[in-house]
Amino acid sequence: MNHPEALHPFDAAIRLDSAESGRYRGRIHQGYANFVGPFGGAIAATLLNAAWSHPDRRGGPIALTVNFAAPIADEAFEVAARAVRTSRSTQHWSMELSQHGAIACTATAIFATRRSTWSAVEATRPSATPASELPLLDSATYPAWVSNYEMRVVEGDITFGAAPRQDSVSTLWIRDKQPRPLDFLALASMSDTFFPRLFVRRQAFSPIGTVSMTTFFHADSSILARQGTAELLATARAQRFHNGYFDQSAELQSCGAVKANCW
Amino acid sequence: MNHPEALHPFDAAIRLDSAESGRYRGRIHQGYANFVGPFGGAIAATLLNAAWSHPDRRGGPIALTVNFAAPIADEAFEVAARAVRTSRSTQHWSMELSQHGAIACTATAIFATRRSTWSAVEATRPSATPASELPLLDSATYPAWVSNYEMRVVEGDITFGAAPRQDSVSTLWIRDKQPRPLDFLALASMSDTFFPRLFVRRQAFSPIGTVSMTTFFHADSSILARQGTAELLATARAQRFHNGYFDQSAELQSCGAVKANCW
Repeated sequence: MNHPEALHPFDAAIRLDSAESGRYRGRIHQGYANFVGPFGGAIAATLLNAAWSHPDRRGGPIALTVNFAAPIADEAFEVAARAVRTSRSTQHWSMELSQHGAIACTATAIFATRRSTWSAVEATRPSATPASELPLLDSATYPAWVSNYEMRVVEGDITFGAAPRQDSVSTLWIRDKQPRPLDFLALASMSDTFFPRLFVRRQAFSPIGTVSMTTFFHADSSILARQGTAELLATARAQRFHNGYFDQSAELQSCGAVKANCW
Repeated sequence: MNHPEALHPFDAAIRLDSAESGRYRGRIHQGYANFVGPFGGAIAATLLNAAWSHPDRRGGPIALTVNFAAPIADEAFEVAARAVRTSRSTQHWSMELSQHGAIACTATAIFATRRSTWSAVEATRPSATPASELPLLDSATYPAWVSNYEMRVVEGDITFGAAPRQDSVSTLWIRDKQPRPLDFLALASMSDTFFPRLFVRRQAFSPIGTVSMTTFFHADSSILARQGTAELLATARAQRFHNGYFDQSAELQSCGAVKANCW
């Protein structure tokens, strides 16, 4: 890489240097900082990147689970990625992110070589005002990572101090602010861009963190190529808030078909 | 265990013998056989059981991901469970199931010590005819594992050869046929009892297998204790079928509140 300054900020944030096969070193980038530590989406994409960029990797991702086990310090980290089992059509990976020898994140990913089969979409697309008619979310009051995305909220925004809402549903348009053709790594990161449902429901801030996130990829490379740099329609909701934990289920859709589901 | 014959079939199916700390041996039980190999729900519960029954385990499960990496033979297997990181409130585990030294399943689980907080349910409960008014699913034409459950289908059953359906939504009542008070292990297993959405949508059989399943547990011990041996209302749907893979999202609910979500 002769001109690292030309890297897209996202590529800089998820960049890994390989010391030996399956072992990488990375650094936390302040451009994707969250309230405390790094934005989880960039970490999820970094972990996926460790498997994705491995010479043994076969096929595209269909599922990714990232578990955030401990706070991540703003310094160097190591990622270990291991192809656990490879079959004719699938490949299972395990990844771990460590700092100072202690594991901060675990992850699993499944890659698959797809074949043409009967296909259908059942997910419905939420009705939404076109992105061109909605204002850009002002990221000034948000942590640094938000400024990397263009978000245009259709419904379910957050105004701290406003009246609590009856539900936690949000719908918004999203894409990279600095244009970057959509790929699996960007989808993994965007899976974590949904603001905490607790904030939306209560319109109040709480010190919380994601503990586990699973993304299912319905898109394949040809669908991603058609998407390019266009906005995705993103929608999220919670099912239950209970004694310290809540869920969040969400979809990222292209203008036509479902692109990815993330939970 | 002096009277293993007195074990509930589910407890027999997920039973592990510990050779040393974090290493277990188990056997596939024919009572939970699937079309090919064992029922994935029993395997998921077995993997959760490895962490759950470990002396270092703290708190109850809030998330479980199980990845089925290879066919599981009908013979002995080993499970390794490792507490990756423990914090004040959460504990992250990694588990692997192996046969003859090759990994067949990977799993991660998060346990948490809950505290009393603001709580709310947003999930809606599907309208359903009471279980007492619905016939028991005849398990005779299904693989062995189905006969361990009482299922009463509200909508979205499968009749191979019937006309394809316009969606893949199913709703049914479910509980253990031989009464067994609900626990986290049973919930993990029931997360995989939803028949493949592809079969429901197309009303046709295909040779398919689960590759990854994530369960989020909203119930805590006190909710489980209240549930006891009563039926759960189970509902599942797919969002997209595409070139060899499809998703399935589902909830298992008590008569009142959401008990668990599984995807």
